[in-house]
Amino acid sequence: MSITVVGSVAFDSVQTPSGSYDRQLAGAATYFSLAASYFTDVRVVAVVGEDFAPEHQAVFDARNIDTQGVERAAGKSFFWAGSYLTNLNEAKTLQTDLNVFADFAPKIPEAYQNSEFLFLANIDPVLQRRVRDAMPRVKLVGGDTMNYWINDHRENLLRVLETLDILLINDTETKLLAQNPNPIKAAHAVLDLGPKSLVVKHGEYGATAFFGAQAFTSAARPFRAPALPLVEVMDPTGAGDSFAGGFFGYLASQPELTPAVYRRAMFYGGVMGSFAVERFGTERLQSLTRAEIEDRFALFRELTHLD
Amino acid sequence: MSITVVGSVAFDSVQTPSGSYDRQLAGAATYFSLAASYFTDVRVVAVVGEDFAPEHQAVFDARNIDTQGVERAAGKSFFWAGSYLTNLNEAKTLQTDLNVFADFAPKIPEAYQNSEFLFLANIDPVLQRRVRDAMPRVKLVGGDTMNYWINDHRENLLRVLETLDILLINDTETKLLAQNPNPIKAAHAVLDLGPKSLVVKHGEYGATAFFGAQAFTSAARPFRAPALPLVEVMDPTGAGDSFAGGFFGYLASQPELTPAVYRRAMFYGGVMGSFAVERFGTERLQSLTRAEIEDRFALFRELTHLD
Repeated sequence: MSITVVGSVAFDSVQTPSGSYDRQLAGAATYFSLAASYFTDVRVVAVVGEDFAPEHQAVFDARNIDTQGVERAAGKSFFWAGSYLTNLNEAKTLQTDLNVFADFAPKIPEAYQNSEFLFLANIDPVLQRRVRDAMPRVKLVGGDTMNYWINDHRENLLRVLETLDILLINDTETKLLAQNPNPIKAAHAVLDLGPKSLVVKHGEYGATAFFGAQAFTSAARPFRAPALPLVEVMDPTGAGDSFAGGFFGYLASQPELTPAVYRRAMFYGGVMGSFAVERFGTERLQSLTRAEIEDRFALFRELTHLD
Repeated sequence: MSITVVGSVAFDSVQTPSGSYDRQLAGAATYFSLAASYFTDVRVVAVVGEDFAPEHQAVFDARNIDTQGVERAAGKSFFWAGSYLTNLNEAKTLQTDLNVFADFAPKIPEAYQNSEFLFLANIDPVLQRRVRDAMPRVKLVGGDTMNYWINDHRENLLRVLETLDILLINDTETKLLAQNPNPIKAAHAVLDLGPKSLVVKHGEYGATAFFGAQAFTSAARPFRAPALPLVEVMDPTGAGDSFAGGFFGYLASQPELTPAVYRRAMFYGGVMGSFAVERFGTERLQSLTRAEIEDRFALFRELTHLD
């Protein structure tokens, strides 16, 4: 089954304790689609500017990612500059230039309409809802968001949450969205807002899935998967989007969504996140093999399993 | 096999978002011995004051914990007051009165000399080393410490670390001890200081074990166990000591220390920590059943296992 992802294709300048890079291909939809491409067919909806060169297109082409839905606009692509010099777990934003993203009006190619899965990466919830409504035939919808939308665009965000099968956000966002500092109570409060399930990302500590009463699997008990515990983090950028790509990519590659499939998808999410952070930018995600992915999956299993 | 634990038996006054309590029985050796008592014989070395009443002795007696080594001294017992009102993950210390603990000179009863396991709870490393040397026949030694000893008594602490089979500390202490902010590099740097293995506690996210080249098991790969993810935290006090009690108690209850036993011990540590925080103080640890412990062990397995 194929996935359509809507989100940013961007350029990042990043400083980490391991070094820095300037205006490299990045963005949530880029990390997501590279990670997911090892599992299933991926289609991207985004907008880029005139700085999006053939070398950048080649990154998507090499992974057979469908970019019909990537609009070329006059001007520059979305640009973000950040630093992890003081805290490897949280980026300090140095600069954000929306550029062509300021007027982004997602257009869904007709050929994408048979996608079974849709992932709404972190963008304006008004656009997320519009894309969701424009793809009535999808069977499963996942979404991400961030503090800015939770704080200042709550009503619009709630209209997205009610359409989601799976919401993927981090600990801080969960507590903020629930307006409750207790992580367990917060998770259940978020489920009450509409998503059928919630995956709370814990950074280096992995992620925990919670299921609402309406969940599409019978895995009503929470599930925790590990993440990044064995690798040296060179660049945390894109870890969450790569988790989402591995998670949804694996889900979409399976004939049926069972509790066991959901659990393995969580592990694959952690695996893809761990690869992403080992090198700068998207470098590691461009050149993986499925064997490397399976080896790390086995390592994660060994890390957490009793027998 | 039996465990001797040396550490504080104290009284705590604690404020949490769920409520508060005043001068209740507490202390690292108390939490540890209660948790370990569900698995094996436990012997305590500590000092208490005249405020240690028959009702407090009865708590130990009810769990068949040997308190021959608990010295009665003139004056008051160690007292600590703390608040979790602003941060459930980190206590704010409001008051610390060492009282009889200021002149604590641990005395090991002769009857304790056949203990196979020794746990050096968080006290002055000079005392930890003295107790370790006074029990030459123990087969396995575990220890805890805290920022104060790491920062201001480093040389004394290093003389303890070189004697340890297992060091149990948290993320912050690991990075501080290693003088390295990278969690993986820090863990390996701590192992280089002498402990044969290191269990890094992550609070609500569980704990990870790392093994040195000289480790007594062949489990050279790290192992992660879950903790507290399913319960509401009423009072975090004693979570780490209860983890240590469950961990060492289970280890001591087994005929041989294999990688599988070490892994299950990590799970039992998480289980006992999760019980401790569900109620105020030591209340929950006083009245558990082995069946309740096994049920939660099964829940933790289900939480993290793929199949």
